[in-house]
Amino acid sequence: MAPAAGKKLVAATFTPFTLEGEVKLAEIVPYIDYLTKKQGVNSVFVNGTTGESMSLTVEERKILAQEWCEKAKGKMEVIVHVGCMSLKDSQELAKHAADIKADAIAVMAPFFLKPKSAEALKLYLQEVASAAPHLPFYYYHIPAITGVKVPARDVIEGIQERIPTFSGVKFSGTDLMDFGRCVSYSPPRWSLLYGVDEQLLAALPMGANGAVGSTYNYLGCHVNKLLSAFESHDLDQARKIQFKIQELLSFAANFGFDLGVNKQLMNDVSGLLLGPPRLPVMPCPNDHAQAIKEKYFKLFTEC
Amino acid sequence: MAPAAGKKLVAATFTPFTLEGEVKLAEIVPYIDYLTKKQGVNSVFVNGTTGESMSLTVEERKILAQEWCEKAKGKMEVIVHVGCMSLKDSQELAKHAADIKADAIAVMAPFFLKPKSAEALKLYLQEVASAAPHLPFYYYHIPAITGVKVPARDVIEGIQERIPTFSGVKFSGTDLMDFGRCVSYSPPRWSLLYGVDEQLLAALPMGANGAVGSTYNYLGCHVNKLLSAFESHDLDQARKIQFKIQELLSFAANFGFDLGVNKQLMNDVSGLLLGPPRLPVMPCPNDHAQAIKEKYFKLFTEC
Amino acid sequence: MAPAAGKKLVAATFTPFTLEGEVKLAEIVPYIDYLTKKQGVNSVFVNGTTGESMSLTVEERKILAQEWCEKAKGKMEVIVHVGCMSLKDSQELAKHAADIKADAIAVMAPFFLKPKSAEALKLYLQEVASAAPHLPFYYYHIPAITGVKVPARDVIEGIQERIPTFSGVKFSGTDLMDFGRCVSYSPPRWSLLYGVDEQLLAALPMGANGAVGSTYNYLGCHVNKLLSAFESHDLDQARKIQFKIQELLSFAANFGFDLGVNKQLMNDVSGLLLGPPRLPVMPCPNDHAQAIKEKYFKLFTEC
Amino acid sequence: MAPAAGKKLVAATFTPFTLEGEVKLAEIVPYIDYLTKKQGVNSVFVNGTTGESMSLTVEERKILAQEWCEKAKGKMEVIVHVGCMSLKDSQELAKHAADIKADAIAVMAPFFLKPKSAEALKLYLQEVASAAPHLPFYYYHIPAITGVKVPARDVIEGIQERIPTFSGVKFSGTDLMDFGRCVSYSPPRWSLLYGVDEQLLAALPMGANGAVGSTYNYLGCHVNKLLSAFESHDLDQARKIQFKIQELLSFAANFGFDLGVNKQLMNDVSGLLLGPPRLPVMPCPNDHAQAIKEKYFKLFTEC
Repeated sequence: MAPAAGKKLVAATFTPFTLEGEVKLAEIVPYIDYLTKKQGVNSVFVNGTTGESMSLTVEERKILAQEWCEKAKGKMEVIVHVGCMSLKDSQELAKHAADIKADAIAVMAPFFLKPKSAEALKLYLQEVASAAPHLPFYYYHIPAITGVKVPARDVIEGIQERIPTFSGVKFSGTDLMDFGRCVSYSPPRWSLLYGVDEQLLAALPMGANGAVGSTYNYLGCHVNKLLSAFESHDLDQARKIQFKIQELLSFAANFGFDLGVNKQLMNDVSGLLLGPPRLPVMPCPNDHAQAIKEKYFKLFTEC
Repeated sequence: MAPAAGKKLVAATFTPFTLEGEVKLAEIVPYIDYLTKKQGVNSVFVNGTTGESMSLTVEERKILAQEWCEKAKGKMEVIVHVGCMSLKDSQELAKHAADIKADAIAVMAPFFLKPKSAEALKLYLQEVASAAPHLPFYYYHIPAITGVKVPARDVIEGIQERIPTFSGVKFSGTDLMDFGRCVSYSPPRWSLLYGVDEQLLAALPMGANGAVGSTYNYLGCHVNKLLSAFESHDLDQARKIQFKIQELLSFAANFGFDLGVNKQLMNDVSGLLLGPPRLPVMPCPNDHAQAIKEKYFKLFTEC
Repeated sequence: MAPAAGKKLVAATFTPFTLEGEVKLAEIVPYIDYLTKKQGVNSVFVNGTTGESMSLTVEERKILAQEWCEKAKGKMEVIVHVGCMSLKDSQELAKHAADIKADAIAVMAPFFLKPKSAEALKLYLQEVASAAPHLPFYYYHIPAITGVKVPARDVIEGIQERIPTFSGVKFSGTDLMDFGRCVSYSPPRWSLLYGVDEQLLAALPMGANGAVGSTYNYLGCHVNKLLSAFESHDLDQARKIQFKIQELLSFAANFGFDLGVNKQLMNDVSGLLLGPPRLPVMPCPNDHAQAIKEKYFKLFTEC
Repeated sequence: MAPAAGKKLVAATFTPFTLEGEVKLAEIVPYIDYLTKKQGVNSVFVNGTTGESMSLTVEERKILAQEWCEKAKGKMEVIVHVGCMSLKDSQELAKHAADIKADAIAVMAPFFLKPKSAEALKLYLQEVASAAPHLPFYYYHIPAITGVKVPARDVIEGIQERIPTFSGVKFSGTDLMDFGRCVSYSPPRWSLLYGVDEQLLAALPMGANGAVGSTYNYLGCHVNKLLSAFESHDLDQARKIQFKIQELLSFAANFGFDLGVNKQLMNDVSGLLLGPPRLPVMPCPNDHAQAIKEKYFKLFTEC
């Protein structure tokens, strides 16, 4: 169950809530145990999309980040997403991430008033990075959520001169020319992590250094096998696993595979009590949860 | 320069910043004077899109709202936008708006994780409203920014049973069937305010009770004339004013009419010192500002 | 039941098919009678979107256009849409329209390989017009179908120098700034016909010279009343009719208001036998047709 | 320069025009020679997107298809695209393709009035196929052009019962989950050809049987090397070629890489005289052509 040689696997974590909808720190230690022991996942992305980051207050994000950093020490790498709509909030979270000794920070493009050019976005990222000048910095590219159309390649061009700690991209998009052009531009020390779980296999020959996504919370050990199969040129095996993931996700898509459904599937598979999502996301209806859970266990046996 | 009988005109205010990018409360009193005395605008929408609300911290939004409410007392109606990505933040701002005796609050749909149905959005709005149960409540419909496709009509259907203080919609969209269906559903005490300045005239026969937008900061007195002309069936005159506004805005669009350009035009026309916008919005280049300013003064003489 | 003074009302006609899906010329005379006598509509737009033009062969379009022109002579104005994906086909249809003495032709932007600029589109339109140099020419602006984003205003700027017979725009879009800018640019002899039936009332103060749409096949007499009410400044009455149209169309939208549903409603209301649509449009399921028909007759009584 | 073992490489051909814009059959024999001898391409896709099919008349498409079939006999496989907006036109072209002994036909979704479900689209395809019941049939999936959102997987599910000659998909989209789900559904005799040239490498591990695209007209021999490198697990080499293609295409994208630019590049590289495109596509400006040509020859040496 060790991670595949040469490729990083990162779980984008859910935020545990109590049934009353408050942050539930007590669930983080069991969560860490589950990911490391059952899923072979040794790296987490905290307070990202899956973590409902923007549905949290700045204070809640700090508390969560701190708990992950403290409890995961020595067991996992912790990347803290500090992207906000407000530059000031992002800077505050970046500084806090440095204080709690996060392994790295990541920032998505703000998207209320959108940056209109690569230059505007780079200025913004640079301002956030300047609040944590010694922390490795990732750009989190997720155009389907932000609506910011600037190609990731344009964002990273020359960025090392503005952000000396720049370390890579969490690329959650389907434009694999843009992804390839990021790979071809990147120095070896950067990580190009691919973030569209259902087509991970497509990004591997293009040069992905690893994978990051929400489904690795409950599919990590299978995806480690996919990564290993790819490394050893066993495409049939890699494809077989990828196709099962596609079958699960397209099945779930029939029920509207949003965060409420996704979180419930994690609860059902892991046995953890991460609670329902926060509004405006609705909890998963019971019958949907039951059907998807059955599909999961029909497709995947324990690793 | 009094507001047109029967129609409300609301300026969506800019947030004054110092050159260093900090909130500049001292500019609010002159701003109020300018709007009331020069533009005939007696109602403001604070901390909305024009106000770069999501680029501010929660604390900054409170300070601004408070200053507006205190200084405008007796002179203007103040509607405070309290929409955030986080329900908790919105609730805190709603409660604060009640404390500072705002005239009303407004909330846009959150759009990081989007509500997937009218029901989810209504539950969200209801939770915000519950933090300020005695304040008039407006739903702020702006699908081009939020990407939330739920028709406004579906949002307001039955909402009076969930939010007894519900008072209307700030409708910033071009789907005038949806707008008309809001009008036909609304009881007389609700206000349907139209928010696409460049086609305000189109919304008037459909039943708009008023207008709300950023250009009314510097075009308010002209739009009051448009409203009056419409009321007195002088369509030629109303159209003439609307066409001049369209000419200004389409001219500005050639330069990318974003908030940086818009704010600079306000600075240039009003003589106020509202500063540049905050990142990720870039300041307006000087030559663009100059050209647009000239166009403005060519089209519009003082009221 | 005469058309409203000063405003033109144009029905975008359906193409009559037999049950076997062949063009059914015999239904055109009764169709003309229905429109003129029952709906007060004296102008038709033939082989447009409602007419499934692109689902027809060039030969079928000729036969249909010819029948309409012959049979409507002295009773109605006939505008023939000759837009195709292929310039050559459009030119052939334009020439044919001149031969059969159509009153005017109209052309939409081709949209397989899209014109990338106003210039490309104008060159294209000019080439079509040159095949019928004496026929009045309309540009048919319908961006939701074509995906061509060039503003109509940019298309018509300077077009009279390229197409001396240019006569107006069929504007089927919701961007009423663009529409207003077309109006303000147009010489008096051009007609700016608005083509989004559910928000016609919004386009009237902006300067629409008339209305063109599919629903006027079965709502013509009511819309004539709307136009008359608007002309006589009776906005309450105009709005009342517009709201009923919105109620009908939003009710139909619940069933997916496509051409199959629309055509069936026309069959049900008029008693004409226009048949089902052609593939890829599916016929309207019976229960949907029944529900929408009932809604229609609940909302509208005979004029 | 032989095609890579196990993977098919198909050039989507340009339509040769004279300078006056008429179909130029005389260029087809040299074109065939160029593709087979210089590019190692033994399969062509005729009258597709690259071929400006919808800008041609039905008669022109017949003449072109016939010339390709006659002249390529024994040298190349010829797949004729017969998709049109009109089912009748498509049927006529399908029948004609059978008469001229094309190797296969392909059909894209019609998209003036769009099929609203997989069922509607399948009925349509079935009706076309019935006009050429013995010809191998491909579905041409190109959602960015058609705007038809039905997943390809939903189209091919059960299609063998409606179209016994169904043979595969030309998949020109970036949704590689949908592509993977097509692969996992397909019987071995079907071909899943990937059609987004700039990210071909991504589709290979997902199970693509080959590649089809316009750039293979002038990059065929390089892409054959990419395919071979992939087959022999030399990912570094495959990636190196893919990255050069991406560099060329992103360079060209700065000039708006439309069909006019693409066709000019083919003229410049091959020495063939395929002429300019037809309106509404504009010819490539000379300076753009020169810059892109230089970039090509800087990146690629003769195979």
